[in-house]
Amino acid sequence: MNTTWMQAASESGFGLDHLPLGRVEAAGRTQAAVRIGDRVLPLAAAADRLSPVPAELLQSDTTSALLAAGPQVWADLRHSVQELLGTEADAITLTTPIRDVKVLLPFDVADYVDFYSSEHHAMNVGRLFRPDSPALPPNWKHLPIGYHGRSGTVVASGTPIGRPNGQTRPTGSADPAFGPSERLDVEVEVGFVVGVPSLLGEPVSAEAFSGHVYGVVLVNDWSARDLQAWEYQPLGPFLGKSFATSVGCWITPLAALESARTPGPKQEPLLPYLHDPDPWTLALDLELAVNGTVVSRPPFASTYYSPGQQLAHMTSNGAALRTGDLYASGTVSGPERGQVGSLLELTAGGAEPVPLDGGRLLGFLEDGDEVRISGTAAAANGGRVTLAEVTGRIEPAGRSVAN
Amino acid sequence: MNTTWMQAASESGFGLDHLPLGRVEAAGRTQAAVRIGDRVLPLAAAADRLSPVPAELLQSDTTSALLAAGPQVWADLRHSVQELLGTEADAITLTTPIRDVKVLLPFDVADYVDFYSSEHHAMNVGRLFRPDSPALPPNWKHLPIGYHGRSGTVVASGTPIGRPNGQTRPTGSADPAFGPSERLDVEVEVGFVVGVPSLLGEPVSAEAFSGHVYGVVLVNDWSARDLQAWEYQPLGPFLGKSFATSVGCWITPLAALESARTPGPKQEPLLPYLHDPDPWTLALDLELAVNGTVVSRPPFASTYYSPGQQLAHMTSNGAALRTGDLYASGTVSGPERGQVGSLLELTAGGAEPVPLDGGRLLGFLEDGDEVRISGTAAAANGGRVTLAEVTGRIEPAGRSVAN
Repeated sequence: MNTTWMQAASESGFGLDHLPLGRVEAAGRTQAAVRIGDRVLPLAAAADRLSPVPAELLQSDTTSALLAAGPQVWADLRHSVQELLGTEADAITLTTPIRDVKVLLPFDVADYVDFYSSEHHAMNVGRLFRPDSPALPPNWKHLPIGYHGRSGTVVASGTPIGRPNGQTRPTGSADPAFGPSERLDVEVEVGFVVGVPSLLGEPVSAEAFSGHVYGVVLVNDWSARDLQAWEYQPLGPFLGKSFATSVGCWITPLAALESARTPGPKQEPLLPYLHDPDPWTLALDLELAVNGTVVSRPPFASTYYSPGQQLAHMTSNGAALRTGDLYASGTVSGPERGQVGSLLELTAGGAEPVPLDGGRLLGFLEDGDEVRISGTAAAANGGRVTLAEVTGRIEPAGRSVAN
Repeated sequence: MNTTWMQAASESGFGLDHLPLGRVEAAGRTQAAVRIGDRVLPLAAAADRLSPVPAELLQSDTTSALLAAGPQVWADLRHSVQELLGTEADAITLTTPIRDVKVLLPFDVADYVDFYSSEHHAMNVGRLFRPDSPALPPNWKHLPIGYHGRSGTVVASGTPIGRPNGQTRPTGSADPAFGPSERLDVEVEVGFVVGVPSLLGEPVSAEAFSGHVYGVVLVNDWSARDLQAWEYQPLGPFLGKSFATSVGCWITPLAALESARTPGPKQEPLLPYLHDPDPWTLALDLELAVNGTVVSRPPFASTYYSPGQQLAHMTSNGAALRTGDLYASGTVSGPERGQVGSLLELTAGGAEPVPLDGGRLLGFLEDGDEVRISGTAAAANGGRVTLAEVTGRIEPAGRSVAN
């Protein structure tokens, strides 16, 4: 084996202990793939080298069959790829430089749920959006608040983000206006990708998390704050969110994050259906950069509700899971200003812009701004696992029907 | 041709002027089908008799390809089925009694959006849920309020509905409890099924409605009012709705509802992006029955925002449409008590139960209750088009994780 490229892969955070799953156009076909360093292993072509994973799962043109196959197949895939790439001298010939393939959205998104599980974020937003009410709603410490987003506009990292048009009611105005959002924001989130479905009417407990969830993607839940503020009462966010949600192109399997497990924050007593006998979360160190300047470092482990509790809550009414369901943590914000996951919080609603390298003062996003969310976690070998980044460049508002 | 069965089909509201699209298991395969009276025409087997509709669209195991194909193919399908069934002597031999096939969910649901477009419903609910605020939120007359629901739990008419468990906060209690919903309700709605997708970043105007929307299904947006009341602030309904949404099994094409077109209610001035040069809605006469007693007759034409305006609003931020997107009107309520689309309204929040035949007093739904939503519209021939009914029987709450 060529130890040089494997060494470089490991140092990039995409080594043999990571092996995230994605979907590419390579060798003339759309197929599932595993990333290793700056190369990809397309799985269809390698199917006969990845026993005991059933070949038909590897030869699909999506990742759905692999995601649905469950923990044993996920483990078999991981071990067989590690064996192939780690010990076979010709392994590199099965891989392709990532620059030579088209990297696609890594899974077909079924339902998309967005939670609101960071206490610091909920407090910060409550103060800004509802200054006359308690910062934390009365239900917040009893249940992980969440809502459904638009799965049809979940896009792959790198997809340009058009500034949305929409209705807003400018401060001091009685009537709303329609036009490009002037308060375009990001939300730094961590998303969980469901592989194994569940039956309608059968709740899934927090303990059963690892039997259903394949892995993790970083999420940018783009938000037009001015549209959101005017529309969201009484039925929640709609067009202020539904124009685009960006996700990382490689799903990090939970198996690669074993060393990142950590107990979650201390919780107030919860109803039994939200109990997790082994409460845990993930110590993911996130970073938000705008035009190359890191403006925040949100700590995911500070999120109040765990991924297992979110899953248990989401299915507690009997709602079924489907392969490809995505649920995101909600904006991750730590207690410090340099740890918040949105510009709304970072700039106090735009009132306190922050300087970027080169002198630009960052309030909300301007056309041409480049946003990058990245993250790492401890790896078993003492190094780091790199979560696939989420990037997006803001494009000017497009035509509106009114034009 | 056998005029007797065709005459009976016409009298049932499923005659040659209707021809709704669905999906069945018949002749050993899953396929698209058209309903005629109490029979179905499976389309795969009849593909060579339905020129000029491309055979590959008819031979798919879902309706997606036909829905995506657009207005010209929709018209060709309609005319070729009318020609086949209306003039060919052997046509009945191509059909199968509906009792001999398994009728499935008629389309793969992409995103599900639920609007809130009935002014009477919004006022009634506002008074009950937010007694200290104006009944109509300040944004209501400026935009059609809506939110995303769970597409993975949209089920076919007839699917049993398990009473959901969930968190509620009983009146007078400081802390919430977890258990079966005690305020299980219905919402009588009309849903619109998108066929032709749109591009991300490209708004779809109200005028373009007929180029994208294939047809109409009745919808029961089951609602657990006690879960909803506790969870819905600040991000909207979630588990109070996501346990199940039932839809009719046959999509009525818009072409069958030409005679039902009627101007919508007079509107206050709207922003230009919501203008419809030919404002219209559909005069659909709906009926809600519980255990065989009709308890309400909601008039769809009273809905404030039109289906075209809902489409324009939903895409005004550039959100893309996908084949199979379902958007529902929101609960349809007319001005009279006998015209409301929910038991919440009909019984004043449960305080004023209404008698069913046989003496039962109906408040919210009890286990074993059978709910039926039906509807008709004027047909071109002076008769009626029957919308496919939506039924569901309430089953006792299932196990909860806590048990």
